[in-house]
Amino acid sequence: MAPLCLVGSLLSFGLVSAAEPIEPIRPIQEINLAQVALGKKLYFDPRLSKSGFISCNSCHNLMLGGTDNLKTSIGHNWHQGPINAPTVLNSSMNLTQFWDGRAADLKEQAGGPIANPGEMAFTHTLAIDVLASTPEYVIEFKQIFETDKITIDEVTQAIAEFEKTLVTSNSPFDRWLLGDKDTRSVEQVAGYALFKSNGCVACRNGPAVGGNSCQ
Amino acid sequence: MAPLCLVGSLLSFGLVSAAEPIEPIRPIQEINLAQVALGKKLYFDPRLSKSGFISCNSCHNLMLGGTDNLKTSIGHNWHQGPINAPTVLNSSMNLTQFWDGRAADLKEQAGGPIANPGEMAFTHTLAIDVLASTPEYVIEFKQIFETDKITIDEVTQAIAEFEKTLVTSNSPFDRWLLGDKDTRSVEQVAGYALFKSNGCVACRNGPAVGGNSCQ
Repeated sequence: MAPLCLVGSLLSFGLVSAAEPIEPIRPIQEINLAQVALGKKLYFDPRLSKSGFISCNSCHNLMLGGTDNLKTSIGHNWHQGPINAPTVLNSSMNLTQFWDGRAADLKEQAGGPIANPGEMAFTHTLAIDVLASTPEYVIEFKQIFETDKITIDEVTQAIAEFEKTLVTSNSPFDRWLLGDKDTRSVEQVAGYALFKSNGCVACRNGPAVGGNSCQ
Repeated sequence: MAPLCLVGSLLSFGLVSAAEPIEPIRPIQEINLAQVALGKKLYFDPRLSKSGFISCNSCHNLMLGGTDNLKTSIGHNWHQGPINAPTVLNSSMNLTQFWDGRAADLKEQAGGPIANPGEMAFTHTLAIDVLASTPEYVIEFKQIFETDKITIDEVTQAIAEFEKTLVTSNSPFDRWLLGDKDTRSVEQVAGYALFKSNGCVACRNGPAVGGNSCQ
């Protein structure tokens, strides 16, 4: 898989020298802003959980780098699961979602924790009932998706669209890749050369430096 | 206490007719914006709890009207306490804090949940240790409070300053009080007249309609 990743990622970003296996993260380009605004509300809404206490942000906390900073996450009824929450930052660039890659994309991933008994412990049906009981949500879903009936499909679509905005473009390393050579020290440049010459980049390449794409 | 409340509140807000016992909520006037920015981070920071999972915002959730929408709040280790979380919105206008009024102001209140075993279950000392281990916090506290040593005093001061910004000014009723008579229906105006003539306003007066000041 790695060689294909490498070729694909190099071709997809014309600004960077073809010699660089790691690409800078691009600022957000095409996005549906109305879905982003709705998705942000849903992302922070603990009423999507059985307890009314846990939201997407509980484990993928945006003030802690998009994760919870814990070895394994705390879920419904203080359940401590076996999973270390991956960061939501730059997750749109992962080839697949969840550590084992069982979800194809962010939209498919977003429905998982809501219904997981050890996480938000709700059901999609009950989560939708909560949203449908809130007039502001009903109006917003109708305006955006032109539907009178909210389904999990629109909920996860909006959450995923919001999550696509959570990227860390313009880092010092990205600026170095784009030509600003003052942002890296001699040691850092040497480390990157070693990272490449040792073959780390076979899996760790592209804008998210591999993400969970090649494990 | 009620007559004193009434006299004090009427005198304190010159824009409204002396005949009105309820006052519009004023937009924020004097505030320390640097403390507000720091306090906002602290308000949302779950690392002020023993678990790293619970923040001020967990029970006083700003997307749910400043409360958690639960009968009683969920705390450390899924402890369900006896307390229905009051909203943080407009809480700066309460005469005292906590339902039983045991804290004099927001600054005194803010330290309570951090150290309450059934809530955030931490200690002030350990919470400060976490903050002091974060270089960005150390720099920000130094810039704002001109101190090398963070204490709970600065932490609660910043949180309280942020909470003072959480007011719901410009509501339709407030606009009615300020002279825009189109914002209330005939029934609403009649209900307010009854509210006054029945004596509800003996305790329920001022900008926060009593808050927890006269229970």
